[in-house]
Amino acid sequence: MAMVCLSDFEAYAKKYLPKIAWDYFAAGADDCNTRDENILAYKRIRFRPRMLRDVSMMDIRTKILGTEISFPVGIAPTGFHQLAWPDGEKSTARAAKAMNTCYIASSYSTCTLEEISASAPGGLRWFQLYIYRNRAASQQLVQRAEALGFQGLVLTTDVPYTGKRRDDIRNGFRLPPHMKVKNLEQDFEVCEMSVLDPSVTWNDIYWLRSLTHLPIIIKGILTKEDAELAVRHGVQGIVVSNHGGRQLDEGPATVDALVEVVEAVQGRVEVYLDGGIRKGSDVLKALALGAKCVFIGRPALWGLAYKGEEGLQDVLRLLQDEFRLSMALAG
Amino acid sequence: MAMVCLSDFEAYAKKYLPKIAWDYFAAGADDCNTRDENILAYKRIRFRPRMLRDVSMMDIRTKILGTEISFPVGIAPTGFHQLAWPDGEKSTARAAKAMNTCYIASSYSTCTLEEISASAPGGLRWFQLYIYRNRAASQQLVQRAEALGFQGLVLTTDVPYTGKRRDDIRNGFRLPPHMKVKNLEQDFEVCEMSVLDPSVTWNDIYWLRSLTHLPIIIKGILTKEDAELAVRHGVQGIVVSNHGGRQLDEGPATVDALVEVVEAVQGRVEVYLDGGIRKGSDVLKALALGAKCVFIGRPALWGLAYKGEEGLQDVLRLLQDEFRLSMALAG
Amino acid sequence: MAMVCLSDFEAYAKKYLPKIAWDYFAAGADDCNTRDENILAYKRIRFRPRMLRDVSMMDIRTKILGTEISFPVGIAPTGFHQLAWPDGEKSTARAAKAMNTCYIASSYSTCTLEEISASAPGGLRWFQLYIYRNRAASQQLVQRAEALGFQGLVLTTDVPYTGKRRDDIRNGFRLPPHMKVKNLEQDFEVCEMSVLDPSVTWNDIYWLRSLTHLPIIIKGILTKEDAELAVRHGVQGIVVSNHGGRQLDEGPATVDALVEVVEAVQGRVEVYLDGGIRKGSDVLKALALGAKCVFIGRPALWGLAYKGEEGLQDVLRLLQDEFRLSMALAG
Amino acid sequence: MAMVCLSDFEAYAKKYLPKIAWDYFAAGADDCNTRDENILAYKRIRFRPRMLRDVSMMDIRTKILGTEISFPVGIAPTGFHQLAWPDGEKSTARAAKAMNTCYIASSYSTCTLEEISASAPGGLRWFQLYIYRNRAASQQLVQRAEALGFQGLVLTTDVPYTGKRRDDIRNGFRLPPHMKVKNLEQDFEVCEMSVLDPSVTWNDIYWLRSLTHLPIIIKGILTKEDAELAVRHGVQGIVVSNHGGRQLDEGPATVDALVEVVEAVQGRVEVYLDGGIRKGSDVLKALALGAKCVFIGRPALWGLAYKGEEGLQDVLRLLQDEFRLSMALAG
Repeated sequence: MAMVCLSDFEAYAKKYLPKIAWDYFAAGADDCNTRDENILAYKRIRFRPRMLRDVSMMDIRTKILGTEISFPVGIAPTGFHQLAWPDGEKSTARAAKAMNTCYIASSYSTCTLEEISASAPGGLRWFQLYIYRNRAASQQLVQRAEALGFQGLVLTTDVPYTGKRRDDIRNGFRLPPHMKVKNLEQDFEVCEMSVLDPSVTWNDIYWLRSLTHLPIIIKGILTKEDAELAVRHGVQGIVVSNHGGRQLDEGPATVDALVEVVEAVQGRVEVYLDGGIRKGSDVLKALALGAKCVFIGRPALWGLAYKGEEGLQDVLRLLQDEFRLSMALAG
Repeated sequence: MAMVCLSDFEAYAKKYLPKIAWDYFAAGADDCNTRDENILAYKRIRFRPRMLRDVSMMDIRTKILGTEISFPVGIAPTGFHQLAWPDGEKSTARAAKAMNTCYIASSYSTCTLEEISASAPGGLRWFQLYIYRNRAASQQLVQRAEALGFQGLVLTTDVPYTGKRRDDIRNGFRLPPHMKVKNLEQDFEVCEMSVLDPSVTWNDIYWLRSLTHLPIIIKGILTKEDAELAVRHGVQGIVVSNHGGRQLDEGPATVDALVEVVEAVQGRVEVYLDGGIRKGSDVLKALALGAKCVFIGRPALWGLAYKGEEGLQDVLRLLQDEFRLSMALAG
Repeated sequence: MAMVCLSDFEAYAKKYLPKIAWDYFAAGADDCNTRDENILAYKRIRFRPRMLRDVSMMDIRTKILGTEISFPVGIAPTGFHQLAWPDGEKSTARAAKAMNTCYIASSYSTCTLEEISASAPGGLRWFQLYIYRNRAASQQLVQRAEALGFQGLVLTTDVPYTGKRRDDIRNGFRLPPHMKVKNLEQDFEVCEMSVLDPSVTWNDIYWLRSLTHLPIIIKGILTKEDAELAVRHGVQGIVVSNHGGRQLDEGPATVDALVEVVEAVQGRVEVYLDGGIRKGSDVLKALALGAKCVFIGRPALWGLAYKGEEGLQDVLRLLQDEFRLSMALAG
Repeated sequence: MAMVCLSDFEAYAKKYLPKIAWDYFAAGADDCNTRDENILAYKRIRFRPRMLRDVSMMDIRTKILGTEISFPVGIAPTGFHQLAWPDGEKSTARAAKAMNTCYIASSYSTCTLEEISASAPGGLRWFQLYIYRNRAASQQLVQRAEALGFQGLVLTTDVPYTGKRRDDIRNGFRLPPHMKVKNLEQDFEVCEMSVLDPSVTWNDIYWLRSLTHLPIIIKGILTKEDAELAVRHGVQGIVVSNHGGRQLDEGPATVDALVEVVEAVQGRVEVYLDGGIRKGSDVLKALALGAKCVFIGRPALWGLAYKGEEGLQDVLRLLQDEFRLSMALAG
């Protein structure tokens, strides 16, 4: 079977993953409207292609927070990569490094931060963070990540509680016994979402700031009002995200929200996006609307499910080729 | 089978109810456009979710006409609950009381007002009323309801004649012989809709006012013009409703009409809504657009059909959980 | 099988008519977009229902060109009624008279004008007319119709050539040998559309005017510009029509065109409509938008196909009941 | 099987062509959104039909760049006609001449320009051109075309690289061994798209101008900005085209882009269109929006696949009849 587009990887993953794992990765909240809107919204955005421009040489490299990556697509934080491939996040880290792009490791990794770091030394990695009721646990994680050379902290803001994903409830989703949320096993069992602190507010950004020298990127922003607050609270970047449609259903598609966030931010901090990227032209659209870089979640998991590190590289390379071609054809 | 969302209850009811009863509850007028629009209209309304607000403590209680209920979802008046569960409206009353919310008992109940009252003493109940050609019959009912402790009168205004529900005509719908519209059996046979008075006008509100000290809530308002008239005629509340799409087809969805009614009313009376509520986020949308409380019709019947009093509590609890989660996730 | 709505009659006709006849009646031009739009356009029009109006007495009679009919739905001109029922247009005339409404007899009738007149003496009938290359033939027809008591002349303007109806071409549609276009057999074979004169212009209205004392109603108008021309040329009525979507595909739906025609006409002549009426509420919408009366084409044929005169009365009665109910429910 | 509309030819071609050839002709880039939008866009454009105009005599001839054609539909450049019919482009040329219209021969013809010319002497033909990295090759082609009596040069601007057509990749599409891109075999193997020069800019128009006296028509323009540049660089005509949706997916439908191009051009050069023409009424819409002539791509191939030269004539004649009828019915 030729892997010609991301849908091919999706079909492969759906066919070969255990149903419970596929359902977990595919899940959206409630009726999955926002999950699906993330994708549909791109189709409503039309190019105005320009002709006869010299597209013989195109530079698709970019810099995020000062570090160069080979093209503006990174790996979004998603949990439990061992559900997709035995080596889990170690494979992810190796693929990201091989492709010279940024990997945001999830708090819900099934490998430790140390394992991830050791698997691909020198790769550009950020660490995705929740704030726990037990602040000391959060603090430890931040400091471990910083010590291990992670170069950014991505604070997820849209999970005061877990969204209602019907299939996961029907399946009674839980990790198989041989997998663990390893980063936190020394401390406490975070698979219980109740360890997350729903009382977190903007002031906690100052607390987080006090713990680390790393840049803070805030993830989950969907409105201009929150974008303005993020800038005022001194973050270095914003990921426009609705958690892949897994949290609040019937909020905006991320590419629609991107427009108002970019306008509010006025270039004061970098703006990224995740959600719904399925083609190279989606990347181009997001960039044309002001994103500095986009991140892929489910497609990265499909790549892992296909062939681990190699499959994820295939996914990234395919997106890279499509992105480059779209740029050329759009002039 | 796990009951994860209201659609699960719907599927259960469709599977286990006799076809004639299911069709009666599901029926919409003519092509059922308005029935279906009630639901679809919510999908067109998008949240603007806000992040990093302290959502650790949320108070979802509200007051309607001065009485506290545990969350802003009550039971809309629907007929013939014995078609769904042997105990009929007695189960409904018990579930509403257990969940500490408001139950609007229908004139077309298959239990008497006395039975309903006795089944759940002290519960918050309103009584839904038609005006009959025989005004004395209406007057008796009003006074019985008041004497029994019902705390509001809900006057239905959209049934000068019964809407055309094709399946009911095809099925030759009628109550099974062992069920009766019990409230009225002493007086006359109201199942014949011809006893309703199609000449009722706004002036009859004054007549109704003269009969009772109870607050009058007017149900079936869909335009700002009628909302203004309702306020001027001294009602205490308005239920924006199109009778679940069972009367005039191709009028507005209730959540769309809500906006203009709320704007016209300007807070002078409380505004409620029924029609199309299928998720906790629908409740939140209606409240965000100005409703004080919403009422559920068909979902309550599905709960009854599932497990009577217990099933209806399941439905209410599920909506309550979803509503609370939506509030948290929307900030 | 209960005949509860017009779709039931349609299903019956589709099942029992020979395919070639069904296809002929159902045909639309090209992709049938306009045929289908005629129906869909009604669904985009929403009522603003008003409550608590006295609807105990409703008068649904109206007058068209001074003659009272029992309700504002007449029979549009359609050809070849013997394809639907052996007695053909004689049954149609009888049903229209029985229901006290107006029947516009088509030039393509399979009964003579004399047979039609004799079958239902005293019924209100108009005659639908084309202008032939052979003007004397047209003149004869006009004068025959006038002499027989037809009370209006409906000039069809949208057939300079016949629209392209794919199924009729595939079927090689033609009348069975035992049927004839009887009105014209003495003169010439009009089934050949080439007898129609494609050079007809507005000046020919003056010529037609000079032949007869009957009111002239012009059929096929879809724009304000043509409506203005029609008024200036002295017609007494306008039928907004796109020939049931059988002529030019992808023009406007008739109910959409109605709005601009009514606005242009400003009450100077009566405006009618045909196309897409399938429910009583469609009639109400057309009237609310300014039509004085509507005409039904295909539904009348379905009624004939069901039970001849009786079946057509069933169709008219059903529409009448639905129209009355819609009026009551819309206030 | 009656060939009543272009879809009939499409169905025939789909049934009888080898899958790999059908897929190649049908292919669109990526998700094929733009390919499909080209067609759907026509359905959103509605006529305002006018009545009672003398349509007995209609002249559908037009002139493009000074040469009369029998009706405003020509043959767009498409590659590899031998995949559809053994005689390939020779049949195309003969059909175009027989119907007295313009044929734009593709650089990717499977017959030489000399064979094409010889097959239909005196026919109106333009030659479609790419600019190769090897400019001498382009120059030779231009001069050969001019010498052979081609009357226009159509420069394709939207192929700096080939679009991503998934099915072609899956099929491993390539010409069968007995077919060749004959025009270029003396020079080099152009089937390798890498011979195209992606560094071409507007300045190359001046270079092309210097090689030939033929009018230059620029193909692939979709924006007013590029239309203005085209006029300023001295071209004689513009083909609004998105390469049948085979290059950049999710750009505008051609008939939508036509409007802004026509407005920008203000009549300074002739504007043509290809993409999505499937009915005579589509032609009329494009002309009403300012196109001087349209060109058909896939429908011409379906005609070839049906019966070669004769089948293509059938297609052209069918469109001609439909176009004429639409004109008459639209007044």
